[in-house]
Amino acid sequence: MDDVTFADIQRAAERLRGVAHVTPVCTGRQLDEASGATAFLKCENFQRVGAFKFRGAYHAILMLPPEDQGRPIVTISSGNHAQGVALACRLLGREAHILMGGLSNPIKRQAVLGYGATIHEATDHLDAERKLPALLEQLNGVYIHPFNDPLVIAGQGAVMLEFLSTVPDLDVALAPVGGGGLLSGTCLAAHGINPKLKIYACEPAGALDAMHSVRENRVMPMPEPRTLAEGLKTSLGDVTLSVLRQHLAGFFVVEEEEIPRAMRFAFERLKLVIEPSSAVALAPLLRREPALVGKRVGVILTGGNVDLTAFFEQFERKA
Amino acid sequence: MDDVTFADIQRAAERLRGVAHVTPVCTGRQLDEASGATAFLKCENFQRVGAFKFRGAYHAILMLPPEDQGRPIVTISSGNHAQGVALACRLLGREAHILMGGLSNPIKRQAVLGYGATIHEATDHLDAERKLPALLEQLNGVYIHPFNDPLVIAGQGAVMLEFLSTVPDLDVALAPVGGGGLLSGTCLAAHGINPKLKIYACEPAGALDAMHSVRENRVMPMPEPRTLAEGLKTSLGDVTLSVLRQHLAGFFVVEEEEIPRAMRFAFERLKLVIEPSSAVALAPLLRREPALVGKRVGVILTGGNVDLTAFFEQFERKA
Repeated sequence: MDDVTFADIQRAAERLRGVAHVTPVCTGRQLDEASGATAFLKCENFQRVGAFKFRGAYHAILMLPPEDQGRPIVTISSGNHAQGVALACRLLGREAHILMGGLSNPIKRQAVLGYGATIHEATDHLDAERKLPALLEQLNGVYIHPFNDPLVIAGQGAVMLEFLSTVPDLDVALAPVGGGGLLSGTCLAAHGINPKLKIYACEPAGALDAMHSVRENRVMPMPEPRTLAEGLKTSLGDVTLSVLRQHLAGFFVVEEEEIPRAMRFAFERLKLVIEPSSAVALAPLLRREPALVGKRVGVILTGGNVDLTAFFEQFERKA
Repeated sequence: MDDVTFADIQRAAERLRGVAHVTPVCTGRQLDEASGATAFLKCENFQRVGAFKFRGAYHAILMLPPEDQGRPIVTISSGNHAQGVALACRLLGREAHILMGGLSNPIKRQAVLGYGATIHEATDHLDAERKLPALLEQLNGVYIHPFNDPLVIAGQGAVMLEFLSTVPDLDVALAPVGGGGLLSGTCLAAHGINPKLKIYACEPAGALDAMHSVRENRVMPMPEPRTLAEGLKTSLGDVTLSVLRQHLAGFFVVEEEEIPRAMRFAFERLKLVIEPSSAVALAPLLRREPALVGKRVGVILTGGNVDLTAFFEQFERKA
């Protein structure tokens, strides 16, 4: 696979102009007081489909070679990548097929169907991977990987380009890590502009495969990851591993109980709806991680797709 | 009592500069699709204390005459006005005493205490009103009315000045009505700039006193208002009644079940945490009220202080 360059990310950002939202950067007095830092939140929860994933999916599908025009798009995802692919396909006039493994947040499911995509059921992620080759053959489909794809990474890198154009003088940036697509794009974009900017991966203790993979320099999947941050259960790929090894300043391990606490801070104090993966990147600030105190810290809030059904059912009963 | 002029609102906005946040205006493709309108949301949920109420409270306390300097501030509120007064007093170095009638959202209570105010308990609003004179005498206190005060109204009017400086060409503006302080300020600010702008009051069916009061031209309190929108249970005062009679284009009555539905739309689609009172102003858009379809509609999202304890307790159990 090809490497991704800074110029690739700049071109991706150009191609996304007018299609993806330029998301706002939020600040908050209470967050600064709680963290001892000066914090800036890049709000990809306000992105189309409610998550940054739209950027990479759209960019990868847009850039498919001419000989692939007309072929259906296939992906495996039970999360935000599924929505990103589904919306990108609708906008680009392509057929979308999503292999969903296991339980999926019903909000995300509805959204995928709403964009006109077809859902193919699988019992879990492994089962989805088993079913993929036959589906690709049957449909003559093109597979779009959720993260281990230079075009996807270049699209996600646009988040950090925008972030630094709004707040040029960040000292540190935090992003959660699952498969590492966003984080790789973040590293390459940031260091293309300011090689001194320190980038930390935030990873839940219950799915701590990326930290071990980077340290051992090989992809080491965790057999049964357990975390509220569903989006972060995936392991790195070879492309993302290679980028992260070269660029990361380190890892912040986030305990499971910090996740709802950080989410609650976002909802109650910042009035922002964020999903657990976003909370993983916010948590190190809220526990006053020493490397962050006194610094200008950028946090990527990756998305806001959280299932609020139980809350609203209870609330509606009062109405 | 004095009238409020457009110039009063302009001066209030000047005095609030650098103290109150200039809140963002949000737009959303999904909201426009759902409503058939072009919608703009003035996000006072991002205001200090999580609600517009800070503006009026700060302005009224700031402008107390010199002979009242040093006297403690007293108010009756179990909601956002209490927080607004408490924070304003902290910033202005005044002592704050809040008479809270009946049940209060624990988040709001904690915030009031966090700002250093003293809470005085009352069983309900009537009991608080009974206790007020003795408390004022005991403390030699100055009373700050939550809405029926020209200085408070002028402060709330700054919301609409900002809104029209961001989006000058609104056709219609929507705001919820409780005591009418925000709505009066909104009318006076809007019509000082564009007399053709149509302003509608949004009122819950379970607390429909303002509509009747405006039609009958006298304050007609509802004996037992019942609505999820706690902040809208109050009745108009003589100052607000007079302004609303002169300026309103009409009322939109919002049924109780529309309130959680509109809140849910804000949380799930817009990723914004809003409280029930804000949802009341959003609901007419979501039901495609005929007067709004095809129009450029501004909605004031008044606040985001909603009790999410039950949701997070359930969520934390999963962690």
